[in-house]
Amino acid sequence: MIRVVLVEPREPRNVGAAARAMKNFGLEQLVLVNPERPLDEAAYRLATRGAADVLERARTVATLDEALADTVYVVATSARAREGYAGEVYTPREGAPRVRRMAAEGPVALLFGRENFGLSNEEMDRAHAVWRIPTGGYASLNLAQAVLLVAYEVFLARAEPRGTARPRPAAAEELERLFADLEAYLIQIRYTDEHRLEGAMRAFRRMAHRALLSPNEVQRLRGLLRQSRWAIAHGGDRVD
Amino acid sequence: MIRVVLVEPREPRNVGAAARAMKNFGLEQLVLVNPERPLDEAAYRLATRGAADVLERARTVATLDEALADTVYVVATSARAREGYAGEVYTPREGAPRVRRMAAEGPVALLFGRENFGLSNEEMDRAHAVWRIPTGGYASLNLAQAVLLVAYEVFLARAEPRGTARPRPAAAEELERLFADLEAYLIQIRYTDEHRLEGAMRAFRRMAHRALLSPNEVQRLRGLLRQSRWAIAHGGDRVD
Repeated sequence: MIRVVLVEPREPRNVGAAARAMKNFGLEQLVLVNPERPLDEAAYRLATRGAADVLERARTVATLDEALADTVYVVATSARAREGYAGEVYTPREGAPRVRRMAAEGPVALLFGRENFGLSNEEMDRAHAVWRIPTGGYASLNLAQAVLLVAYEVFLARAEPRGTARPRPAAAEELERLFADLEAYLIQIRYTDEHRLEGAMRAFRRMAHRALLSPNEVQRLRGLLRQSRWAIAHGGDRVD
Repeated sequence: MIRVVLVEPREPRNVGAAARAMKNFGLEQLVLVNPERPLDEAAYRLATRGAADVLERARTVATLDEALADTVYVVATSARAREGYAGEVYTPREGAPRVRRMAAEGPVALLFGRENFGLSNEEMDRAHAVWRIPTGGYASLNLAQAVLLVAYEVFLARAEPRGTARPRPAAAEELERLFADLEAYLIQIRYTDEHRLEGAMRAFRRMAHRALLSPNEVQRLRGLLRQSRWAIAHGGDRVD
């Protein structure tokens, strides 16, 4: 299943227009993260009757964590080039075949940011892939336009071939536990100073996201960290 | 050059939203055919400041003929499957490379119909190609959404290779003179009855549009019709 996640949308009517855009291309699951205002008359008017059911069944949650907990693949979208974002960036057309494949493995989230300033870097860090929608010189896609183009590309794409059978990828909440363990560990072993910790975590996140770790692999890595902490606490193989 | 032609748009704000969609993908020429109301405050608000210049330079004309007179290639768009339209229908992705090539030869028009019922069959007959935007089950793209998706595909497409050098294709007004001659001729020679004339003309139009006739070829065909009329008037080679 593919869900559209709107992060802190300001205007209910933009949510309505996004619902209509989704429905045109067969996407029906909408999640709103901490919207500024509840859905209203204007939202339903913009959705038109055809997409009213998308709004009726939309889920509102307080945090991005809740929206992503069970997802196996997350795409962050961006209408602009992101300064300071060093990860790999794909166009929707490049990335859509993978979304189609991952949707067969578990819930996939397509993440859209706020009308005025998009997604924060921390929110982008939650994604396996970032999609930038290519535009001409004047790039000012609104929320519903971005949803429309992304939904269109996903609709037209064929699933990427699956290759050899692979286990289901870990869900976001499992991965986040690994990242929490890792961050605590990096601090404990003084891997880097406070200022560089964020950048280091980002680099590790990217590797893990690219690897599409399975639940077993996540457990293995967490076990490695746990054993390392134990070794530190017990002096490891120090001979004294 | 590629122009967007909106046929009898009802709502100025839809024209504004379409202008914004165009501008995102580098299209700047907008022509309005017999709009129901003039552009207003709402149109400029929906265009946003970035696309206000598209509205300011938009040309309003009374007839489709005026909008298409100098074009060498015309695409009619449709968000729905057209019953009763027997011509070839492409998706925007299939058709976009040809639009890119033809735009190097002369003005190209992308034609969008009314918000409520699209383009009439007679208007579709003016096009070299019909594009249908593929959608999921619930197909209810609004005008600006249709413009956005078409502009996006044209923006991303590369020009189809040109093959051997070919002369510039005839402009729409030259072609229309050929069609007018042909229709008069069909009536004169009683080629078909009144009821089937429209369908016959449509079939001839399709052939001519697919052939991308040059101005010389159009003259040659009109000459053939003229000579045929002369022969009829003078008894041809009747031996008596």
